[in-house]
Amino acid sequence: MPKDQRPATPAAVSVRDVAALARVSPTTVSNVLSGNRRVSEETQDRVRWAIDQLGYRPNLSARNLRLNRTGLIAVAVPEIDVPYFAELIRHVVQGAREHGYTVLVDQTEGRIEAEQFVVDGMNRGMVDGILLSPLGMTRAEYDQRRDDTPLVLLGERIVGKGIDHVGIDNVAAAEDATRHLADRGRRRIAAIGHQTPRGGGTAPQRTKGYRKALRSAGLPYDPTLVVPTRNYHRLDGAQAMADLLDSGALPDAVFCYTDLLALGALHTLHQRGLKVPDEVAVIGIDDIDEGRYSLPTLTTISPNKPTIAQTALDLLLTRITTKEQDPQQVVIPHTLEQREST
Amino acid sequence: MPKDQRPATPAAVSVRDVAALARVSPTTVSNVLSGNRRVSEETQDRVRWAIDQLGYRPNLSARNLRLNRTGLIAVAVPEIDVPYFAELIRHVVQGAREHGYTVLVDQTEGRIEAEQFVVDGMNRGMVDGILLSPLGMTRAEYDQRRDDTPLVLLGERIVGKGIDHVGIDNVAAAEDATRHLADRGRRRIAAIGHQTPRGGGTAPQRTKGYRKALRSAGLPYDPTLVVPTRNYHRLDGAQAMADLLDSGALPDAVFCYTDLLALGALHTLHQRGLKVPDEVAVIGIDDIDEGRYSLPTLTTISPNKPTIAQTALDLLLTRITTKEQDPQQVVIPHTLEQREST
Repeated sequence: MPKDQRPATPAAVSVRDVAALARVSPTTVSNVLSGNRRVSEETQDRVRWAIDQLGYRPNLSARNLRLNRTGLIAVAVPEIDVPYFAELIRHVVQGAREHGYTVLVDQTEGRIEAEQFVVDGMNRGMVDGILLSPLGMTRAEYDQRRDDTPLVLLGERIVGKGIDHVGIDNVAAAEDATRHLADRGRRRIAAIGHQTPRGGGTAPQRTKGYRKALRSAGLPYDPTLVVPTRNYHRLDGAQAMADLLDSGALPDAVFCYTDLLALGALHTLHQRGLKVPDEVAVIGIDDIDEGRYSLPTLTTISPNKPTIAQTALDLLLTRITTKEQDPQQVVIPHTLEQREST
Repeated sequence: MPKDQRPATPAAVSVRDVAALARVSPTTVSNVLSGNRRVSEETQDRVRWAIDQLGYRPNLSARNLRLNRTGLIAVAVPEIDVPYFAELIRHVVQGAREHGYTVLVDQTEGRIEAEQFVVDGMNRGMVDGILLSPLGMTRAEYDQRRDDTPLVLLGERIVGKGIDHVGIDNVAAAEDATRHLADRGRRRIAAIGHQTPRGGGTAPQRTKGYRKALRSAGLPYDPTLVVPTRNYHRLDGAQAMADLLDSGALPDAVFCYTDLLALGALHTLHQRGLKVPDEVAVIGIDDIDEGRYSLPTLTTISPNKPTIAQTALDLLLTRITTKEQDPQQVVIPHTLEQREST
């Protein structure tokens, strides 16, 4: 046997075997495998059951070869070890697998050359499509894209020519978080996490939402209560909270731009002997798993990661099959998850 | 200009420009870019400074084309959103970048077919080398590898033919963790996280170390104090701790096989009103960032992730350039980081 022709499964189970066990035609099995939704739910379940029973592995490489595809999708995020991105990626990986795609993840750290490598299609023809959560690149740079690999942007909207986009409304999310604190009678609400990244990004949107909520609640805007951070790690949140307390600003609540910042802030508040939420209430954004187990558990704005991942993937897969589609801008609704920290 | 020949940088900065500014020869710049360590630290710094000043982007694709390489390395781990893996990947990405490599991450979830796709070189010729943290595959399956892309295994040792391996001594790590609890006078030490994965894996090694430490401390082995978990998420740790308390087993200390399990266990102990460490001491393994900010902060066995990543990368890069090298088995020393939870 030539080296390139590997059997799809060690046991050499075929589509025919699956079809026979599921009592459907081989074409129906193929339709289920390719994610064709015109097959009834019940039939899909039966085919999947038969696949599991027989341990069938579809010969994706043969199919991809036929379609001139790689079977790979790339997801590029600034930092893989930021839990929000890691959790989002998990949903993307699981969704993509249902369509027979393998997901490769790239960490850009917001470096422009890394983002450019991604939007320029990585190594030519290496992946069928790309999801990118951008940080460094500007709109003008997107417009100079030299590649036509299907691309969907995650996170803050940067309108490039013909680029799909999926994210939450960051102004509204920050407004909801701040209003939640004001509604609980808090009057000195601090904000941790302001940034002005080169590519725009989410932080300025969140600052805008914070100020909007203060105005609506009739609270004055006090710049000494707004603490920028260099990164969004726990350490940044802990240091920002310490700086705030050391400055004598004495907030009675803190809106953190991410859960990770909020978890760092909680650590400092505990060290300083301040009670949460009695003396200082804390809210974040991201709804990461860690906030469900922290002490106290963390109130947060949940961006609905499964829906973001699914929507982005659907847009990308559509663009892979039919390149002619108007650019889509999808805003995914967020919710507030109240826990012990407020 | 043909579509394939992209300029390396928008401003068309060349190696000569960098060399002129750094007052070195173009060859020295190339040596720094290729990670050649025979260049003095001071000269390296000057070249890097000049690169930053000019915004120079090396034309890696041309170099890779010449060497018949892709410039890509794959890292495959069971779960990207498990912080230990995410943090390890960050170190790999940063180390690889210094050598001009881009890292792609693949999440296998321990599925055999996903691990097989990785060890069989992914899409043929797509990456120059692979780091894999295996879970599902057995030694026999490695021996049937159908590809010769350089491969280094991370985590538990599985001796396949000619496969490099980097990890900690898991028996010793578990022994050290358990002894730390025994040394503090704890007598009823529970263990959370036992598993018997198909490919062997770390869990049985950690159970072995736990039992070894009990014997050395003259403590009886009580199977009711050993709680297996299906996964290693916070939820698994929280549930295992609850099950243990509900069973009436009353431990005075808990050794958790990972920090994530320990953070889940801490959550349950707090909910049940048990004081840590006074009533129950808790220790984990992994030294993830979260354990430095938890309440209480978490004592842990630190596997030295930077050294694991660097060593694995060095082995892989050596194997990419010189394929003939005896398989290496490197054990990285671990340390105990004592914090508030013990």
